[in-house]
Amino acid sequence: MKLASLKGGRDGRLHVVSRDLCRCVPAAAVAPTLQAALDAWDSCAPHLRALAAALERGPLPDEVPFDPAMCAAPLPRAYQWADASAYLSHVALVRQARGAEMPDSFRHDPLLYQGGSDTMLGPRDPIAAADEAWGIDFEAEVAVITDDVPPGVSPQDAGGHIRLLMLVNDVSLRHLIPAELAKGFGFFQSKPPTAFSPVVVTPDELGEAWDGARLHHPLRSHLNGALFGAPDAGTDMAFGFPELIAHAARTRPLGAGCIVGSGTVANHDRTRGSSCIAERRMLEQLADGAARTPFLRYGDRVRIEMLDADGASIFGAIEQTVEPPR
Amino acid sequence: MKLASLKGGRDGRLHVVSRDLCRCVPAAAVAPTLQAALDAWDSCAPHLRALAAALERGPLPDEVPFDPAMCAAPLPRAYQWADASAYLSHVALVRQARGAEMPDSFRHDPLLYQGGSDTMLGPRDPIAAADEAWGIDFEAEVAVITDDVPPGVSPQDAGGHIRLLMLVNDVSLRHLIPAELAKGFGFFQSKPPTAFSPVVVTPDELGEAWDGARLHHPLRSHLNGALFGAPDAGTDMAFGFPELIAHAARTRPLGAGCIVGSGTVANHDRTRGSSCIAERRMLEQLADGAARTPFLRYGDRVRIEMLDADGASIFGAIEQTVEPPR
Repeated sequence: MKLASLKGGRDGRLHVVSRDLCRCVPAAAVAPTLQAALDAWDSCAPHLRALAAALERGPLPDEVPFDPAMCAAPLPRAYQWADASAYLSHVALVRQARGAEMPDSFRHDPLLYQGGSDTMLGPRDPIAAADEAWGIDFEAEVAVITDDVPPGVSPQDAGGHIRLLMLVNDVSLRHLIPAELAKGFGFFQSKPPTAFSPVVVTPDELGEAWDGARLHHPLRSHLNGALFGAPDAGTDMAFGFPELIAHAARTRPLGAGCIVGSGTVANHDRTRGSSCIAERRMLEQLADGAARTPFLRYGDRVRIEMLDADGASIFGAIEQTVEPPR
Repeated sequence: MKLASLKGGRDGRLHVVSRDLCRCVPAAAVAPTLQAALDAWDSCAPHLRALAAALERGPLPDEVPFDPAMCAAPLPRAYQWADASAYLSHVALVRQARGAEMPDSFRHDPLLYQGGSDTMLGPRDPIAAADEAWGIDFEAEVAVITDDVPPGVSPQDAGGHIRLLMLVNDVSLRHLIPAELAKGFGFFQSKPPTAFSPVVVTPDELGEAWDGARLHHPLRSHLNGALFGAPDAGTDMAFGFPELIAHAARTRPLGAGCIVGSGTVANHDRTRGSSCIAERRMLEQLADGAARTPFLRYGDRVRIEMLDADGASIFGAIEQTVEPPR
């Protein structure tokens, strides 16, 4: 099934969305918000599935057209946002551009940062930045949402805690990153609010494209209407989601509604293009000695989407414009 | 006024607590949880204050004795936990011990890390660690809780967003920190769930000890019944809370219920003792060439408390025992 949080209140209003993303129906009778549904997933999910099945069968009295512009983030605020960097071609390239080797440990020890989760952006919310000189960039990713995960969970058991999947734009302020990371405590100002796809989907919606650890479809990013990259999210992901969850839960439980991100999707095959501007700039620099593609400016438009084998949008599109704060 | 979240459900049950920490009364008629109260602080606070005043005047029909052992964290799960390192004597000492200089920028650019907030520990919850060899340590801190903070807020305006104060035990796994920080993305596994004091208090409860930016009382830490340190939280705090909030909000809004921590309280006057074991170990190493005080082992007891000028506990005590996971 597919779920969305329509804008309303601090936590949105949970809706079940039709598979073709054309119609939706309020799920308030089951759970007012997605967080409430995740808090009691085992009891809520069957009722949500029944509602989804009824919606597919035909018109429901309270259904409305589904409009991604009315969507908040599936979790407009979340308790945990753990974002990995699981595509090592991206990590290696970042380091190569500055003449550094990627430590061999990165091949067996996942890289994960603690993201801020009190303000999550809906799929059509603007990327609000007070200064274009911050080096505004997008990062297209896949993410999962878990139920309650016990501390020390094994990678074998972690997969069973994945309840939902969605797409992410992990907005990054590139020019704030070097000074911030040099301080040693990781990202803070350099990672402003993250944006998410209109809908989240249960794993069964993905068919064989979801193997329990990786999602095998190209992740398509457009910049100002032009295709920027379409690397396959299932290819070259060094750590599957169960491994990332186990890493995050090594010394702590993870609460229901925990979001775990894949990191910027990237393939070793460079002809697939990139999922962020920084990567293209690094390739330009390595090829020509200078980066040509500028970071985002006010008015620039980013679109992130994943299509199924029939060309239908799975999660709906993230479509954001860069703007000064209102 | 003083507030507490008694254990119950995922988010606790909001109670108003008497000034002497002896009695409390459910506040469910105003707001079921502290997060709900913070989400609508301007409308809830007057009713909570009225309830607090009634509780001080005399017995209420539904009051019960206040028992810190029944307390969850004030926010058992939160949307934002931003922890600073504002006592530079602590920062400088950590670096001195490994022969490094503290960058001069640390004197004007606050150090802040993004903490995980999906599982917060109550004041009497155990410190559960699967391995004693992780280098388990406590860190005694002061923290504030804000209402909604707009992005780019000035330090001048940030102070007005401070609604509540509390104490923190920022549990740290010292032996996991070096490898994790070396990866460049900050803390994750090395910062397991954080613990909080039984009650949160509004700034007016603190009288002249709260100057709007710093809380001027010794923060008393005990280890296995012996006083470990009592540095003054208002002394040597390089950045006040309004500056820390402004730093955290530079590129993003902060949502209601955002927790901002001071970092390990430390004074340049070493006779005041330490608020974590790592600091004492560093002083031992500098003095004698070897650290003698071990990190925490199963069964060790940590107590963190702040007393007012009359010797009364302001926030109640954090009292935790280190245990293997259940």
